[in-house]
Amino acid sequence: MSNQFLVFQERAHNNISKIALKASKNNIHFRPHFKTHSHVEIGRLFRQHGVDSICVSSLEMAQYFAFDGWKDITIAFPLDINDLNEIYELAQKIKLQILIHDSAQLEAIQNCPATVGIMIEVDAGYHRSGIPFTDWQNIAYLIKQIYLKENLYFHGILSHYGNSYGVRTAESIKSVYDKSTQRMLFLADKLEHELHMDIYISVGDTPTTSVVTDFKDIDELRPGNFIFYDLMQLQIGSCSLQDIAAVVRCPIVGKKPQENKLIIHGGAVHLSKEVLDFNKNKCYGYLVDTERQEWKLMDSYVENLSQEHGIVQASPEDFRRYEIGDYVDIIPVHSCLSANLMHDFIKIV
Amino acid sequence: MSNQFLVFQERAHNNISKIALKASKNNIHFRPHFKTHSHVEIGRLFRQHGVDSICVSSLEMAQYFAFDGWKDITIAFPLDINDLNEIYELAQKIKLQILIHDSAQLEAIQNCPATVGIMIEVDAGYHRSGIPFTDWQNIAYLIKQIYLKENLYFHGILSHYGNSYGVRTAESIKSVYDKSTQRMLFLADKLEHELHMDIYISVGDTPTTSVVTDFKDIDELRPGNFIFYDLMQLQIGSCSLQDIAAVVRCPIVGKKPQENKLIIHGGAVHLSKEVLDFNKNKCYGYLVDTERQEWKLMDSYVENLSQEHGIVQASPEDFRRYEIGDYVDIIPVHSCLSANLMHDFIKIV
Repeated sequence: MSNQFLVFQERAHNNISKIALKASKNNIHFRPHFKTHSHVEIGRLFRQHGVDSICVSSLEMAQYFAFDGWKDITIAFPLDINDLNEIYELAQKIKLQILIHDSAQLEAIQNCPATVGIMIEVDAGYHRSGIPFTDWQNIAYLIKQIYLKENLYFHGILSHYGNSYGVRTAESIKSVYDKSTQRMLFLADKLEHELHMDIYISVGDTPTTSVVTDFKDIDELRPGNFIFYDLMQLQIGSCSLQDIAAVVRCPIVGKKPQENKLIIHGGAVHLSKEVLDFNKNKCYGYLVDTERQEWKLMDSYVENLSQEHGIVQASPEDFRRYEIGDYVDIIPVHSCLSANLMHDFIKIV
Repeated sequence: MSNQFLVFQERAHNNISKIALKASKNNIHFRPHFKTHSHVEIGRLFRQHGVDSICVSSLEMAQYFAFDGWKDITIAFPLDINDLNEIYELAQKIKLQILIHDSAQLEAIQNCPATVGIMIEVDAGYHRSGIPFTDWQNIAYLIKQIYLKENLYFHGILSHYGNSYGVRTAESIKSVYDKSTQRMLFLADKLEHELHMDIYISVGDTPTTSVVTDFKDIDELRPGNFIFYDLMQLQIGSCSLQDIAAVVRCPIVGKKPQENKLIIHGGAVHLSKEVLDFNKNKCYGYLVDTERQEWKLMDSYVENLSQEHGIVQASPEDFRRYEIGDYVDIIPVHSCLSANLMHDFIKIV
């Protein structure tokens, strides 16, 4: 198809570079989450910044990146105990860390023939998954169980501060980080006291990673979206327009002059159905002018979409600018979902 | 991954059979829309019902199905004039019909080296794309232009009654069909009078095709979703639970007993972000018991999802029924989007 998911290399490198530097300054480990792009070519951009360990959100992604030579992978998604054979196979090839939050998962993995690091998922306030941070006795019990199994070792506690997506100012983002990290530290303190061991703390989400500067209390950062950012991150305040590094380029296939609407080949199978109120408009993506080094947000947005069709509500000026066959560049609401849909049409420019 | 998009063959065959019979009784052409499944294996199910002409919504799909031996394909999406070379190539291999709604598209395709049928898209009330049905003079002009080009011929007028998705009773669906068809007939009448030729009328959408029985005035039916149906169609009233032919099977990776919530590996990359108010709950999919021949809707639904995670709000009884590692079957809100996401994991059972 003539649609493309364009990745602007220079911007992507800047984004990686900023976070890598931040991690280095704080003397913590940078383990980028590759779920956002899930693409070997984009993965290779990270290698130029010295990244050699990554995080993914499915076994399938771990297999895919292991095949491209990544040797240290954390699957930051609760273990699916139906996948044991594949996990065992992968653990024999790379340094693998997996995530559990239940004793049933630990029991299932106990006969692993190769060394696997176990991380325990902690709920520090997002309430999606993980063991509540207050439930430190349960977590301590699980850690002890891990050490009873021959090939398992405890790698650390892990949390995703996903509630940072719900706030909208730098101050609120910092507050989510501080509150969640205090909870992780409370837990680590309890565990260290109980188990007489250092507790490795891994956290990560794009809003807090982008905005917070002082990470001295934790050990590992795992942001993902920051490589591209998107309209949602722009609204949250994690990035500026000049940080956004990906657009979906879509052809115009129709014009409706009475309503200043453009019909584009850019629907739910390109942009996803993720929707956002942006500039007071419910939209599925915003048009951006990428011609110059400095991007400019246009006065036009995707107001509706079905499977393949997108309907752009354009300003009169933007409407006049385009003819059928021209392309528009769209900042997707959620770049992770769009990159997944456009996986085979990602192009680095 | 261990997630699967399961297609229940017997149900799918029943669905095809019903519409094929309806078309045959009305002596009209059945050209199923393959955008819903976009899968060669599912496409082959249709061959057993004598289907030999299909409809798709992108050039890429047309190429994909042509490669599997389909020889008569309509691309029911407005021509992207950037794709001319690929269109020319395809037109030399199969009987191809394309869709236009603007003279710019006609001009672009005029030097096609092989015969191509041109269809004109008409807006009969949905207001997504197409020339308004009232604009018959413009349409008549375009048809005359088509006949001035050597390899082009006018195949007919085409409309998608997509506004049928907005109503909720059989009576309202019929009313959308009647009103839209009256408009198409008004247009056809004007064109026949002006051009002294028969006008072929192609319409299609799952709600009206499923509910209406008398199609004598039109020439071609192009429904797509009916092969699987889904939660949205169930709500619209296009189908019964026993007609639904596809579920997304997802493993349980966590349980939250305090809230009767199941954490599943089933997120936006499996189910899509299409959301629906169903049984008074905002949901991304509904759990269904598929163990017996007669399916039973459960009292549990996907209340939230992120990229890979799904959160199921379960009834206490459903919650107790499942353990970590078990699978749940989920009726997606919109089977077309889910089938697209799960393309490589479609399994016919």
